[in-house]
Amino acid sequence: MSDSGSIRVIPLGGLGEIGLNCLVLEYARAALMIDCGVMFPDHYMLGVDLVIPDFSYLSELGDKLLGIVITHGHEDHIGALPYVLREVEAPIFAPPMAAGLVREKLREHKRLDTSRLEVFRPGEEWSLGPFRIDPIHMTHSIVDAVALAVNTPLGTVLHTGDFKLDQTPIDGRPSDMARLAEYGSKGVLLLLSDSTNVEREGHTPTERSVRGGLDTVFREARGKVFFSTFSSHVHRVRQVIELSQTYGRKVAIVGRSFQTTIKIAAELGHLPLTPGLFVDADDIADMAPHEITLLTSGSQGEALSALTRISMDDHKVKMLPGDSVILSSKFIPGNERIIMGMVNHMVRRGALVYHQDSAPVHVSGHASQEELKLMLRLTRPRYFAPIHGEYRHLVRHRELACEVGLDPEDTFVVEDGQVLEVDESGARIAGEVTAGRVFVDGKGIGDVADIVLRDRRHLSQDGFVLAVIGINQHSGEVVSGPDLVSRGIALEEDVQLYLEEARGLILETLQQLARESRTDSLEVQEEVRKTLKRYFSKTLERRPVILPFIMEM
Amino acid sequence: MSDSGSIRVIPLGGLGEIGLNCLVLEYARAALMIDCGVMFPDHYMLGVDLVIPDFSYLSELGDKLLGIVITHGHEDHIGALPYVLREVEAPIFAPPMAAGLVREKLREHKRLDTSRLEVFRPGEEWSLGPFRIDPIHMTHSIVDAVALAVNTPLGTVLHTGDFKLDQTPIDGRPSDMARLAEYGSKGVLLLLSDSTNVEREGHTPTERSVRGGLDTVFREARGKVFFSTFSSHVHRVRQVIELSQTYGRKVAIVGRSFQTTIKIAAELGHLPLTPGLFVDADDIADMAPHEITLLTSGSQGEALSALTRISMDDHKVKMLPGDSVILSSKFIPGNERIIMGMVNHMVRRGALVYHQDSAPVHVSGHASQEELKLMLRLTRPRYFAPIHGEYRHLVRHRELACEVGLDPEDTFVVEDGQVLEVDESGARIAGEVTAGRVFVDGKGIGDVADIVLRDRRHLSQDGFVLAVIGINQHSGEVVSGPDLVSRGIALEEDVQLYLEEARGLILETLQQLARESRTDSLEVQEEVRKTLKRYFSKTLERRPVILPFIMEM
Repeated sequence: MSDSGSIRVIPLGGLGEIGLNCLVLEYARAALMIDCGVMFPDHYMLGVDLVIPDFSYLSELGDKLLGIVITHGHEDHIGALPYVLREVEAPIFAPPMAAGLVREKLREHKRLDTSRLEVFRPGEEWSLGPFRIDPIHMTHSIVDAVALAVNTPLGTVLHTGDFKLDQTPIDGRPSDMARLAEYGSKGVLLLLSDSTNVEREGHTPTERSVRGGLDTVFREARGKVFFSTFSSHVHRVRQVIELSQTYGRKVAIVGRSFQTTIKIAAELGHLPLTPGLFVDADDIADMAPHEITLLTSGSQGEALSALTRISMDDHKVKMLPGDSVILSSKFIPGNERIIMGMVNHMVRRGALVYHQDSAPVHVSGHASQEELKLMLRLTRPRYFAPIHGEYRHLVRHRELACEVGLDPEDTFVVEDGQVLEVDESGARIAGEVTAGRVFVDGKGIGDVADIVLRDRRHLSQDGFVLAVIGINQHSGEVVSGPDLVSRGIALEEDVQLYLEEARGLILETLQQLARESRTDSLEVQEEVRKTLKRYFSKTLERRPVILPFIMEM
Repeated sequence: MSDSGSIRVIPLGGLGEIGLNCLVLEYARAALMIDCGVMFPDHYMLGVDLVIPDFSYLSELGDKLLGIVITHGHEDHIGALPYVLREVEAPIFAPPMAAGLVREKLREHKRLDTSRLEVFRPGEEWSLGPFRIDPIHMTHSIVDAVALAVNTPLGTVLHTGDFKLDQTPIDGRPSDMARLAEYGSKGVLLLLSDSTNVEREGHTPTERSVRGGLDTVFREARGKVFFSTFSSHVHRVRQVIELSQTYGRKVAIVGRSFQTTIKIAAELGHLPLTPGLFVDADDIADMAPHEITLLTSGSQGEALSALTRISMDDHKVKMLPGDSVILSSKFIPGNERIIMGMVNHMVRRGALVYHQDSAPVHVSGHASQEELKLMLRLTRPRYFAPIHGEYRHLVRHRELACEVGLDPEDTFVVEDGQVLEVDESGARIAGEVTAGRVFVDGKGIGDVADIVLRDRRHLSQDGFVLAVIGINQHSGEVVSGPDLVSRGIALEEDVQLYLEEARGLILETLQQLARESRTDSLEVQEEVRKTLKRYFSKTLERRPVILPFIMEM
């Protein structure tokens, strides 16, 4: 290894899943973190509120960690900040919109006063130890998204963040391809590029292409228009505000988080705040339906969201026949049935519903294959590793890189926790650090692990039955019980008969035990467990969790 | 009401959900059931194996029910037969492929000997009481699918079953549009038509269009080809068998249910059984990978399916680098994440995976808007009610009918349990019967209801904690415990500390109670419950199910 040392790239999340994006970059005695996001729990993560990266490795870094640099303000890039700040003390650097959202998040977690948050703008380079960081403007489904060129003495590591190459974005500011090309000419040592949409052929349509679809809805709408998207999708919201002005509608925002985000975006100049345009949701009762647009949260059918509650007629805002609803976002895989359940409710209210499958009201914010190839061509990296995707995305993106001419030996499918080491003699995967997913449930962080989920899953499938028995500790006679209690097995009235029968079986079993066994509470426990297990398996083909509780009296 | 009586159409399932298809048709003192299907449980139906229609209404029919007529052999049309036969005794009439599958199903449920199963063929009319039933050949994603023209003295009710209008089907037998048109000319009183794909514009592509996509995979495949679809999709399987012959591959079938279905289809002449074409999956070890096609079940990522186990290297059949996998079916909404998890495993094995989102390897078996309009034009019904769909599908299909010229007054969005009555003076929704979804869990039918699911859901979110306390029934003193046991709250080592602290709190609480309260076990129970609830909410922000168990000693 040469004197100039090596660069180490260590993903702690996002390379093996969609979301959880978090990557550590090390050079010499210094380290940077790029993004620190959450992942939303999958169905099988019962009761889990949030998934964050395992930060154990950071303790090894100690004070080498000079800062956390954020590429944009989506939850899967900033959501784990309040948790990482419990482990390390490091300044956060973020572009304006992201900084606004981070500030709000730290305030909620009561960490604002103890944290250092710095705002940067594209083109404004700064140094952190050996790293000279150059943020490059990119287009994405949130404003103020950047790629990061991290310049080190060994060369430039280019991290794309999330991006698409939108040539006609709403604010007229396309991705800074000139700057990317400039780095390409100077030489990029390592490119780390977004793989989310690598399975899509062609080019992701421009944000502007949604305008036609939205305009059609507004033109034809006779009642209120309900519009829902991720609240941080400022360009989408801006289009809806503009259309509302065109068609003479006032805009009301329903939902606190949506209001906060709009406020941040407006303060940063991303949204026109024409006087009199916005109205309070409480004041729309007196207005004609065709004069109202409602921005509401809940495009994913979230259980407590305004939109779900409105669809079920459980909200002060009413959805009425002739109203229109636009669900302007992708159905996140796993949410389809819940969203479609919400749509059924809306149709029952008499609303016309427009969504990704029925109208051109959404486009993705991630680059498709042709854009990804263009990124590779523009930046001409020496080495390449795909980021932001499940395993199959990373593999596909690597293939794409080989198709545009990279040597397969220079491309790396790196997974969370693996160390990609680059020095003057080459690049290689060199070892592994602790990484993984940590579950947040209520106030607990990491105390719900696979084994706890297994218990919850078992309970969720067939419930449990508890048997409490008092045993005379000398004679082994049953002096109290068995008392049987169950939950989640079957209906109360049905289960009583079964419990009664099971009670008899337990007594029978215990009577057949030798006296020394009957006085051994562990053995009694085991016999009761076996009896109940067999009984419920035979009668109902169910396997409840069984809890024998023996009291020696 | 005229002397000639009325027709009553009563859906017991499928009009408000995808699946669960089951409809009763009554005239005078006679009734028919058309289809008797299941629905697969949604994520929130924890532990439920299967959903069947509520058959309570059938007891009102008594011996009026003359038979159950099956339109085709999919589970959502035949799956509930073993359950309905517990309630009623009625002959089953089915087209050949469906009859083969029904026979297998009844055998499994040990009901074959006690049931009467009759096979009918398209064009062979027969009478059941006042009904003259005319089965009409239709194309769908299973062979031997029919529409049913049910002729009554009042007129013809035309039930489309599931269908698409494929003009170039694999077996050269398109839907019998001439017969449909003939009924249109004679006059159809009521059309009941499949709404599954009503949200799709245009025309569903022909089954033959998949050939190109499959051919590309076979042409380029260097290793084994794994092919997965619903086993009853005989035309799809036939194409793969033909391609295997073309490219010099033998075919092995992995999975018992797949083997059974193939056997039934082959016996009916739907599949070519060239000698030497099929090989046993146990014998492929000695063959070259490029000589093997494997038909496997599991295209939905089902946990115990052959394909899932192969993807996880937990099967005697191995998936190796260079193998190809074709997932030739729709991802059923809600299954995407599980399927994509399986795909990640396959990519890790080194396989090339083709699926609906990445290659043209699947087309739907249901009619899109233009076909649905054509059906309405051909049959020219007096009245129309959409069937087979969620609420929004039914509403959309009704709109479509109005677009092709039906009077809105003559179209009906009927939901499960509602009675659509048609007589000489008109048609109307006239009352309601008991209908709904019944959950099958193990051997239990209907003993798991919403309230049980609520318990299971509660348990699945935060587990439970049990407190057993022995109280002296005179003094109210605690003589045993509190002993605390929990499951699914948090990791054992973490939770012990909490339980210890909670134990102290309970003792404290009980000491502060007046003596008369302490001897009242119900009051003690309530105090313990409140204490634990408050404690876990405060410390962990979790809400486990709490079970205080007080023993008077």
